[in-house]
Amino acid sequence: MNFGSDNQAGACEQVMKAVVAANAGNAHGYGTDPWSERATALLRQTFECDLEAFFVPTGTAANSLSLSCLAQPWEVLLCHNHAHVLNDEATAPEFFTGGARLIGISGRDSKLKPSHLEDYFKFAGKEYPHNSRATVLSITQASEDGLVYTPDEVATLSATARSHQLKVQMDGARFANAVAALGCAPADVSWRAGVDVLCLGATKNGALAAEVVLFFDKRLAGQFVHRRKRAGHLLSKSRFIGAQMEAWLTDGLWLKLATHANDCAATLAKGLASISGVRITQPTEANEVFVLLQKKTVDRLRAAGAEFYEWPIVSLPPEFTLMESEVYIRLVTSFLTTQDQIEKFCSLARGR
Amino acid sequence: MNFGSDNQAGACEQVMKAVVAANAGNAHGYGTDPWSERATALLRQTFECDLEAFFVPTGTAANSLSLSCLAQPWEVLLCHNHAHVLNDEATAPEFFTGGARLIGISGRDSKLKPSHLEDYFKFAGKEYPHNSRATVLSITQASEDGLVYTPDEVATLSATARSHQLKVQMDGARFANAVAALGCAPADVSWRAGVDVLCLGATKNGALAAEVVLFFDKRLAGQFVHRRKRAGHLLSKSRFIGAQMEAWLTDGLWLKLATHANDCAATLAKGLASISGVRITQPTEANEVFVLLQKKTVDRLRAAGAEFYEWPIVSLPPEFTLMESEVYIRLVTSFLTTQDQIEKFCSLARGR
Amino acid sequence: MNFGSDNQAGACEQVMKAVVAANAGNAHGYGTDPWSERATALLRQTFECDLEAFFVPTGTAANSLSLSCLAQPWEVLLCHNHAHVLNDEATAPEFFTGGARLIGISGRDSKLKPSHLEDYFKFAGKEYPHNSRATVLSITQASEDGLVYTPDEVATLSATARSHQLKVQMDGARFANAVAALGCAPADVSWRAGVDVLCLGATKNGALAAEVVLFFDKRLAGQFVHRRKRAGHLLSKSRFIGAQMEAWLTDGLWLKLATHANDCAATLAKGLASISGVRITQPTEANEVFVLLQKKTVDRLRAAGAEFYEWPIVSLPPEFTLMESEVYIRLVTSFLTTQDQIEKFCSLARGR
Amino acid sequence: MNFGSDNQAGACEQVMKAVVAANAGNAHGYGTDPWSERATALLRQTFECDLEAFFVPTGTAANSLSLSCLAQPWEVLLCHNHAHVLNDEATAPEFFTGGARLIGISGRDSKLKPSHLEDYFKFAGKEYPHNSRATVLSITQASEDGLVYTPDEVATLSATARSHQLKVQMDGARFANAVAALGCAPADVSWRAGVDVLCLGATKNGALAAEVVLFFDKRLAGQFVHRRKRAGHLLSKSRFIGAQMEAWLTDGLWLKLATHANDCAATLAKGLASISGVRITQPTEANEVFVLLQKKTVDRLRAAGAEFYEWPIVSLPPEFTLMESEVYIRLVTSFLTTQDQIEKFCSLARGR
Repeated sequence: MNFGSDNQAGACEQVMKAVVAANAGNAHGYGTDPWSERATALLRQTFECDLEAFFVPTGTAANSLSLSCLAQPWEVLLCHNHAHVLNDEATAPEFFTGGARLIGISGRDSKLKPSHLEDYFKFAGKEYPHNSRATVLSITQASEDGLVYTPDEVATLSATARSHQLKVQMDGARFANAVAALGCAPADVSWRAGVDVLCLGATKNGALAAEVVLFFDKRLAGQFVHRRKRAGHLLSKSRFIGAQMEAWLTDGLWLKLATHANDCAATLAKGLASISGVRITQPTEANEVFVLLQKKTVDRLRAAGAEFYEWPIVSLPPEFTLMESEVYIRLVTSFLTTQDQIEKFCSLARGR
Repeated sequence: MNFGSDNQAGACEQVMKAVVAANAGNAHGYGTDPWSERATALLRQTFECDLEAFFVPTGTAANSLSLSCLAQPWEVLLCHNHAHVLNDEATAPEFFTGGARLIGISGRDSKLKPSHLEDYFKFAGKEYPHNSRATVLSITQASEDGLVYTPDEVATLSATARSHQLKVQMDGARFANAVAALGCAPADVSWRAGVDVLCLGATKNGALAAEVVLFFDKRLAGQFVHRRKRAGHLLSKSRFIGAQMEAWLTDGLWLKLATHANDCAATLAKGLASISGVRITQPTEANEVFVLLQKKTVDRLRAAGAEFYEWPIVSLPPEFTLMESEVYIRLVTSFLTTQDQIEKFCSLARGR
Repeated sequence: MNFGSDNQAGACEQVMKAVVAANAGNAHGYGTDPWSERATALLRQTFECDLEAFFVPTGTAANSLSLSCLAQPWEVLLCHNHAHVLNDEATAPEFFTGGARLIGISGRDSKLKPSHLEDYFKFAGKEYPHNSRATVLSITQASEDGLVYTPDEVATLSATARSHQLKVQMDGARFANAVAALGCAPADVSWRAGVDVLCLGATKNGALAAEVVLFFDKRLAGQFVHRRKRAGHLLSKSRFIGAQMEAWLTDGLWLKLATHANDCAATLAKGLASISGVRITQPTEANEVFVLLQKKTVDRLRAAGAEFYEWPIVSLPPEFTLMESEVYIRLVTSFLTTQDQIEKFCSLARGR
Repeated sequence: MNFGSDNQAGACEQVMKAVVAANAGNAHGYGTDPWSERATALLRQTFECDLEAFFVPTGTAANSLSLSCLAQPWEVLLCHNHAHVLNDEATAPEFFTGGARLIGISGRDSKLKPSHLEDYFKFAGKEYPHNSRATVLSITQASEDGLVYTPDEVATLSATARSHQLKVQMDGARFANAVAALGCAPADVSWRAGVDVLCLGATKNGALAAEVVLFFDKRLAGQFVHRRKRAGHLLSKSRFIGAQMEAWLTDGLWLKLATHANDCAATLAKGLASISGVRITQPTEANEVFVLLQKKTVDRLRAAGAEFYEWPIVSLPPEFTLMESEVYIRLVTSFLTTQDQIEKFCSLARGR
């Protein structure tokens, strides 16, 4: 019963097989291997456009490297208050950008809205160079609260951003879950909706360690190759990251894995919602369920070996108030989650 | 006939098997997995001491992160003129240290000597803070010219360094080859010889992507965990790097792989040395052969599919002068190199 | 009628005389001149303690250099939402600290309170190294809203900060005005109240360009000399900054100048308060008056040559709502302000 | 008898007068004052072109800020082995550029020559992004060894630099002395000779603290305003730096001051050259004399109150060998140096 994080699942069978297969013989490295090239071709096909793709081993690297290509060190990047880039990557964005500033602009809202941008610019100082100018919007898809931005929502955010001369980066650590949930084309919720750069994560969804930064606006990509190298994120045996990505993209595997995880989350949420004393706090749109559980329930679950994390109260939607008997919990499902685990978890939560 | 680089070989069988085996089920990540813990225990056993170990996916990350724990941004790090950290990692050391300065001090000598340090300090300005103070010595073992520092040589360098208040870091991307060549205990050529921090690389010697930074002086390790995270080098599914390292260290596999590569290099060097018009420029002490070949020989080899890199003339020992008919070539052997490949290569070089 | 900023006044007579006098003959530089030494002695006397003093030409340099001695690049610095370090110094703190993060924690309150710190730590993630740890509190004295923290207030903030292992830095660009207003000993509102490092500014209060960073906890000062040099803030002809500081501190001149400015602000506030349609928004505690003026009043004043800045609406205390007919204005007085200017301004504001 | 450094002289009379005069009344700051504007106009007139000018208080700031506008953090800057930017500004260039690398390329030659560049590029690795690409050449005029590059020499260096896609920056801390020595138009040895950015220093030649960065290629100047602010080098009371620069440039004062200093150096060199046991090591082209003196002579001079610095042996031209009885000395003259001081110094050196 592991609902701790989707990165606590390993690699899916097909990805692991591809890694093993890629091991045969010698191969050129540093991104010049045929696996990486085929994966790039698949990405172009998947996103229906000519893009630049750069592979890196971690999501923090993907996010920070991409942001550093978009903002000067004296500029500001805007994001959701709960964004992973803001809260969970140490000060990696500052490190990679050379000291640009991240600002959360969403107040207590669970999703970024155009009005957050408008409010920011209404109040932001414009006495340059004394004040710092915002030049980037980062959107997390699916969000840290498990919510999915629709193509329309992304397009509206991007348009607002663009009206203020901002570039749009998307942290897509769970982009697969979002696309699976939306049932749209990947392009619809990325470049067609105004996203300039997408960090597409495979690690949380069945890879060992494989992320890719996609530049839809190729003019922005020029520094990436230098930034990746000097950050130590250019792998010598790059075939292994290319092979992961190739397998993950082939025959829509990435969306199948994500769909499974999403379905599991939906089932889990439905199961929990029917239990008295359990309060679901966010719509379950991707592969995460946010829930207020009774402390005693939590204890019982943990005693039975269930794994999950307590979640920051600051993320609780304003319409909820934590009661003293409650704990705020995040439950994450993955390609590896089984119906059995869900049933057992719900059963335990129900007190049986 | 791939002699391009040891990182063009994939992973050895045992390491790949361990990765596949580690994939079963869920596991905690971010370095808290049991594979990483067991690998750390093996490292302590292998090095016969209580050390701190941090796993990262690339050698550039290992080197730069370790150096950044040793030098302030206004300080100087000394190394060999041909050092990988100086020449082949973009400006990664500057990035990670926040702008400290690397200086090559070896002139045209193939190996670092205490006199290089003494000469440096004889001439270096000491008007602080105007001048920058050197506080770190980085030693590459085996060196970029394929040479191995003996325990005595390392100890003498370290002692000289320490007499000038320098810390000693070792870039051990090919440390396994050095230890295999020396036949000494790993400790003899690291902490017992005065090394404070060792970057031990498995990637070039049979792993997919696995390096570890070993702090023998644990007081120096405090910042590493923060620096690694904010550089995006803390892997979420850390079991896979732990599993590689565990397998690589088990039953002395790392030394067996390195011994094979070294033996291949020796055979290759011996074969080439007997060919007229071929000049070996460096003693073949580890798994690299440096050789001046006739251009027509190079063409013939390449036409037959042999892979290798032309090497910077600046690395040529001063007693050699490049003739117009010659090309300077580096040949690297790996755990994957076969006798057949060597024989075929020599035969082609011989013109048959 | 210049109420634009206290840095739009030049240097006071005594300071300028001292600069001219210091010009005679040759002198050692880079901080080793006798003027700087005498100024340091005066600082020790003024603050009744043994401190380390470092002179720099600008307030941004003073703040950023001092903060960089207190926080690691992966740490967080807390300050008021309106703090100069946060809003008006580009991303200088990030530049100097190597990418640490500044966070405003005061919401819409005009002054920092211990509860802001407590709230911050209640919600801040503590999963290191993923989350970033706050290690510094920066207090602006007098504040950007013209308010003065009492010794008790500073002591309580510092104690709260210290209970969370934070160091306390004070941006004292208008520290002189605060001390003049409080009538306390400089020590009472700095080190005796728990401040570790004070940036004491003379520039806004009668100097040409002279700021000093005072380390009361001398153990924190070790890096400053290196950081100042590599930031280009060590003046070669340092006698001129030393001479300014010496004259400014001699015979309490700094407090006389500040008292004059404060008195002018009080008179100005009193004059404006009696005018119908004028709303003073902050108590006038130092040398700044914050006021909501009718647009037509502003036009009339500007037409008559009065200078002042429109102020960010975001700084308006929550109990005030900007009316459409109003503009939010900051008026700053200086050692150079005259009764005549104040009377003329009030008279114009009154519509006569 | 101060020959320690030209920055140990204060400000010349006209500059100090201008500072005092500029003190009257209020003025806008942050570079928007009329003094700075007039100084900029004078700079355009002096250099016979439309340039961008940015004032900063120190030479380190000028050099580092200008270099940071020319090089990306992963690039290399080339300069003379004795260059001030390389040896005497801590690691300021690394700090401001975000970690670019400075490399001295002149070996033991006293002046940069095109062949140094050609040799560098002959040996420099070109495997990007692994190797770092050189993109900037920094020329020190007059050089740290007191030598003056002629317009032809600068033009040839610049042309060579440009043929390798390098931008050319000039550290002109003693540019005035160079122009005075050459008797050419300032433009002839700057933009007409291919210099993109000139750091023109007034501090060493009669100002209190005033340097200006001149962008002849205005397209390169866009980031400067941001970089200067976030480095704390934008002075609030900018009139004082503008006033210094205005006075310094008016009626060719800067060249008169420099000519005086140069003449003094020539006289001093001539006087010393005739003394037995004294060896002048460099032609005296600007305002510095480099000389090997007998230890006993040095002691006698110091005992009599003469001030000067021992100079790094590494700067000694290769045709000289330091004898055990000798000390290598740098003597700097300034606008303040008198004939009396020179005569007294020579007389003492002569042993009388």
